[in-house]
Amino acid sequence: MLRALDLASRGPAGGVNPQVGCVLLSPAGDVIAEGWHRGAGTAHAEVDALSKLEPGQASGATAVVSLEPCNHVGRTGPCSEALIAAGVSRVVYAVDDPGQESHGGAARLREAGVEVIAGVEADAAIHLLQSWLAAARLGRPYVTLKWASSLDGRIAAADGTSRWITGAAARQRVHESRAASDAVIVGTGTVLADDPSLTARGDAGELLDDQPVPVVFGDRPVPQDAAVLRHPRPPIFMGGHDLPEALAQLRELGIRTAYVEAGPELAAAFVRSGLVDEVHVYLAPILLGGRHTTLGDIGVTTIADQLTLVTRGVEQLGNDVLIVATNPAAQSLNPWPTGRSTDQPPSDQQGA
Amino acid sequence: MLRALDLASRGPAGGVNPQVGCVLLSPAGDVIAEGWHRGAGTAHAEVDALSKLEPGQASGATAVVSLEPCNHVGRTGPCSEALIAAGVSRVVYAVDDPGQESHGGAARLREAGVEVIAGVEADAAIHLLQSWLAAARLGRPYVTLKWASSLDGRIAAADGTSRWITGAAARQRVHESRAASDAVIVGTGTVLADDPSLTARGDAGELLDDQPVPVVFGDRPVPQDAAVLRHPRPPIFMGGHDLPEALAQLRELGIRTAYVEAGPELAAAFVRSGLVDEVHVYLAPILLGGRHTTLGDIGVTTIADQLTLVTRGVEQLGNDVLIVATNPAAQSLNPWPTGRSTDQPPSDQQGA
Repeated sequence: MLRALDLASRGPAGGVNPQVGCVLLSPAGDVIAEGWHRGAGTAHAEVDALSKLEPGQASGATAVVSLEPCNHVGRTGPCSEALIAAGVSRVVYAVDDPGQESHGGAARLREAGVEVIAGVEADAAIHLLQSWLAAARLGRPYVTLKWASSLDGRIAAADGTSRWITGAAARQRVHESRAASDAVIVGTGTVLADDPSLTARGDAGELLDDQPVPVVFGDRPVPQDAAVLRHPRPPIFMGGHDLPEALAQLRELGIRTAYVEAGPELAAAFVRSGLVDEVHVYLAPILLGGRHTTLGDIGVTTIADQLTLVTRGVEQLGNDVLIVATNPAAQSLNPWPTGRSTDQPPSDQQGA
Repeated sequence: MLRALDLASRGPAGGVNPQVGCVLLSPAGDVIAEGWHRGAGTAHAEVDALSKLEPGQASGATAVVSLEPCNHVGRTGPCSEALIAAGVSRVVYAVDDPGQESHGGAARLREAGVEVIAGVEADAAIHLLQSWLAAARLGRPYVTLKWASSLDGRIAAADGTSRWITGAAARQRVHESRAASDAVIVGTGTVLADDPSLTARGDAGELLDDQPVPVVFGDRPVPQDAAVLRHPRPPIFMGGHDLPEALAQLRELGIRTAYVEAGPELAAAFVRSGLVDEVHVYLAPILLGGRHTTLGDIGVTTIADQLTLVTRGVEQLGNDVLIVATNPAAQSLNPWPTGRSTDQPPSDQQGA
């Protein structure tokens, strides 16, 4: 299985499809073929491995594959059927396929008399597939909503001025979160008001290696000289107001994790629609008062209706504080394999 | 000096006056008298010690005293003059008297030819006198403003319901802060809306040993069955809207530290008047939206006018977060000798 995972990691890490690897073993236990998935539109790992054999050569073989063989007809046929047709007698896999359309491969294989063993090296496979699994379970990208406010929950002073509420360490963390996300989402209102570049930058303002796709929600026209248009990755503009549909479309484009840096109205729309899995609140130790609050109408009218999150971590960043909280419904979903994630709260060390 | 501090600690720990002790040494270095201050209206430590000697017996003596001898005529005469009149030739003290009326004793003594040595065992004396020194420097009690809000800075849902925004660990910490304060301040609005007892209670609801004086600001009448009227310490009612004057009056009553648990309007008035030394913000990981924000109008119109605090500590308490921040102007003032204070931020350990 570790060899299958190694093969899997040769495939593209981002995108619509998961990284999957497959090793075919003869009844005697010798490796007879290997395969991996090279991205959407190409053969799945199992089919890639089978393609390296002569007809009949896989008869009685064991397929070791890092993800449950799929059971749906996409651009490629279902792998379960391909394995059955090839005469494979045993399938060992690491992680169940949580996809609404693609799951069921194990059941289909068993139905056809193939021995199926699941869960082998599951942790390593989950580590590799984390963001894909999260998006597959949700049917949309994992959404992190971020805002920065004063201690009294304001995002701007009475006259609307707001730049640099938080300090350098907090801003740097935001850039790291952008880099760790597949997409950064803002509304046209934010583009018009703040003209953000939405790039992920380092201490010295240099572009980081990983850049999120900038996504702009809303129907208002964006000026031709908007900074987001100079982003190293082409921006995606999503009109309309159907957030679930928009997120589903983003997933189809390979977006597994979305970092929402929206203003109070779009942020509230995400909350109201139940589309927020994680919240990052940056608090600057300043007091502002006034009408510019962090969230607009989220549809809570009485205290019993409050949206209750789970605090996952608190960290002091210079003079600011970052609170990470997750939606209880999303708690088992951790899209980040690297540790900057909901499974591993930020360290409690004081930042600089 | 350590003996003088030991004597000092025999006096009452709270109240208008500081704990002060005095040891008189003969020119040969032998202890010839001791004294301490027993509270407002009684003899100061130096006079108490001198009263134990025959006339002339203090001639050439050294007075070791834990606080700079006072230089003002209160209910007792100035100690500086008493020491001069008694013929004391040397005064050794620990901490300067920061009082606007009482300071200057050292200068007066030197003027009269008395040798003065200051700063001996200053740390131990500061530890003993911490809250008195803070209030003396401010000319009013040290004010901690506390509120509890949702992550998005709301103190109540749209319909005004708000009870138990924070969890048990956070509420217990609030009770500990009440117990550590000389007074708890609320407005009549809070009394009418929430009917708080303002007692400091333990896990099981039992009264803690230290109870703050409940202080109610505002002009609205309080119902005769209000819970605050059953507080173990008689409530103080302060009408009018002159906050600095009201705080000065509270100091005259011996209140050195005030814990303000006011609603958004009174809280904003404290902030607007520059009377907040420390802020305790409890954040529950809930989202509420709506119009019930934490602070009313604090007079900030543009971002450059923001009131900038210094983050002193962050702590997770169960599912909630406590942020402690201090006014930069008050940073050197730490009224709590026991560690739960601005000098020692809360531990970063996760609470339970």
